[in-house]
Amino acid sequence: METSVKNLSIEKVKTSRLSEIDFDNLSFGSVFADHMLICEYVDGAWQSPKIVPYQPLSLEPSAKVFHYGQAIFEGMKAYKDSEGGVWLFRPQENQKRLNISAKRLAMPELPEEVFMDGLRTLLQLDEKWIPQAAGSSLYVRPFMFASGTGFHASPADSYTFIIACAPSGAYFSGKVSVLIEEKYSRAANGGVGYAKAGGNYAGQFYPTQLAVDKGYQQVIWTDDVSHEYIEEAGAMNVFVRIGDTLITSPVSDRILDGVTRKSILTLAEDLGIPTEVRKISVHELVEAAKEGSLKELFGAGTAAVISPIASFGYKGKDYELPELEDSYAHKLKKMITDIQYNRAEDKFGWRYSVL
Amino acid sequence: METSVKNLSIEKVKTSRLSEIDFDNLSFGSVFADHMLICEYVDGAWQSPKIVPYQPLSLEPSAKVFHYGQAIFEGMKAYKDSEGGVWLFRPQENQKRLNISAKRLAMPELPEEVFMDGLRTLLQLDEKWIPQAAGSSLYVRPFMFASGTGFHASPADSYTFIIACAPSGAYFSGKVSVLIEEKYSRAANGGVGYAKAGGNYAGQFYPTQLAVDKGYQQVIWTDDVSHEYIEEAGAMNVFVRIGDTLITSPVSDRILDGVTRKSILTLAEDLGIPTEVRKISVHELVEAAKEGSLKELFGAGTAAVISPIASFGYKGKDYELPELEDSYAHKLKKMITDIQYNRAEDKFGWRYSVL
Repeated sequence: METSVKNLSIEKVKTSRLSEIDFDNLSFGSVFADHMLICEYVDGAWQSPKIVPYQPLSLEPSAKVFHYGQAIFEGMKAYKDSEGGVWLFRPQENQKRLNISAKRLAMPELPEEVFMDGLRTLLQLDEKWIPQAAGSSLYVRPFMFASGTGFHASPADSYTFIIACAPSGAYFSGKVSVLIEEKYSRAANGGVGYAKAGGNYAGQFYPTQLAVDKGYQQVIWTDDVSHEYIEEAGAMNVFVRIGDTLITSPVSDRILDGVTRKSILTLAEDLGIPTEVRKISVHELVEAAKEGSLKELFGAGTAAVISPIASFGYKGKDYELPELEDSYAHKLKKMITDIQYNRAEDKFGWRYSVL
Repeated sequence: METSVKNLSIEKVKTSRLSEIDFDNLSFGSVFADHMLICEYVDGAWQSPKIVPYQPLSLEPSAKVFHYGQAIFEGMKAYKDSEGGVWLFRPQENQKRLNISAKRLAMPELPEEVFMDGLRTLLQLDEKWIPQAAGSSLYVRPFMFASGTGFHASPADSYTFIIACAPSGAYFSGKVSVLIEEKYSRAANGGVGYAKAGGNYAGQFYPTQLAVDKGYQQVIWTDDVSHEYIEEAGAMNVFVRIGDTLITSPVSDRILDGVTRKSILTLAEDLGIPTEVRKISVHELVEAAKEGSLKELFGAGTAAVISPIASFGYKGKDYELPELEDSYAHKLKKMITDIQYNRAEDKFGWRYSVL
């Protein structure tokens, strides 16, 4: 197999596990494709990347990922069109963001070509793992962690970058009701909220579990000072439609610069939907819900694309969202997925051909 | 060897690595004792703990510790006195705090006896690894991480708890100058700052590196809203002496409830030193420095015990601390370490006999 990454070596599996997978009943991210890309940072330099069979990793107990949380990731999907063509969606955005996260976590930046060419080569090799059924895709998980050792609280001296893939069905299913968080927070001003850092997610699990115990599926995160402004929904960016206007919070050092988020903004503007990027207060949300101008609320992210929210809870009261025939959520999700699966014109040059 | 933990199995090393270690030139946490304790949480239950040779761990690439930051730890030390007696310092505090961290990170709480009895048994077995030289100790690192797999952003279904030990010299050396942080933050209100969560440390490395580039060794963290109140120093709690009064910030959901911190407060009160637990503004610190009433500034934590700060930088200006003959830092550090090394009466019952 040819590749433009210098020194990329490929060790293929002896026997593919493909036949063991039930592609009609895929959950999200729980079975893994035959191969993975691995690249080690040692002695101040990235070593030659390798594609190897998906396999366990061996790490010292003192590897800093276990102690000091130097762990970042990206989430992407590979799509197969009806002709068998394989596509990614704006992968350069993920490549850039990985390095933004790396910088904030004091980890080494990964050369663009290792990410892009390594990714393409890996997907070409595991092309048969990309499901073709509607809503299904190969979830692609690039991630990097501190493999260097020692109990001193300082950055590691070695790191491991991996791309692993999981054929996946849809992320959420069913109606989503969310709780607006009034006590816990996701991110600090001047913190790492804008990075896809592992620690941002671990901190969300407990408050989310408390919300689940109350009958909700997810939390809407608010600012950590006043809890008056909505910031993210679960692990997604959040959009609000009031009247005909689609509103989302500005990105900041607390809010992730989501690829789906910015794609939605571009598509909405292109459709002539009035959009606003500004702070959204809980007060505004509740008032709009009461007077009937709150039309939609949805999360946006790679995994779920767009996840419409059916109701939200705040201070012990639940507010229902209307069920619209022709919602922005539905329309925008269709537009994005049509581009992703090569079913529509790619006006903005977002599709990236893999095979 | 006897132990009160049920089903604790012990597999000893065939050949000890003890003779390879240069005990006269120990750094901090970079060489590891022969054995470690490991206990796995699987299928909703903690399995039998094992003591095994210190060895690499095998983990799936999709283990959630690499992706979602479910990783917590504790830091403790085992001390050897002049008679060869082995001691821990308030280990129950670490045991309790581990479970406080676990709860916040949606991880299972570890049974007290696995921690305490496992720890004691491990230290008895690796007793020869505990250095006796002044300032040296066996650094003990209990930690827990998500070993369960899958790319879904949700708590793992299995976890690994380990205690590993590293014979260590002093943590800091030389004069420490710190920079008061005005942009970056360590913790959010409603976040995980009070937990010993890995992600809290990774987020500090980059701002600390920026401070190091400016000629400082550490950062004094301030609140994430106004950056007007000092909260922690590096990975330690922070104390200020103004006039004769010793002041430290109250613990909160942003500030770690440090064992050294609370021991210092108790000892200072016992010595008749006026203490205050209240917010400390940067303004107060700077004003006190200018008028000469700022006598001391020091960090407090298990690794360094007490780390006196020689100067601090703020808004481009550096403020020197006086060099006192009989500083609180020196006096309190001596008192704590005398208790830890069994050189003084243990008035508060903090010493815990291991052997």
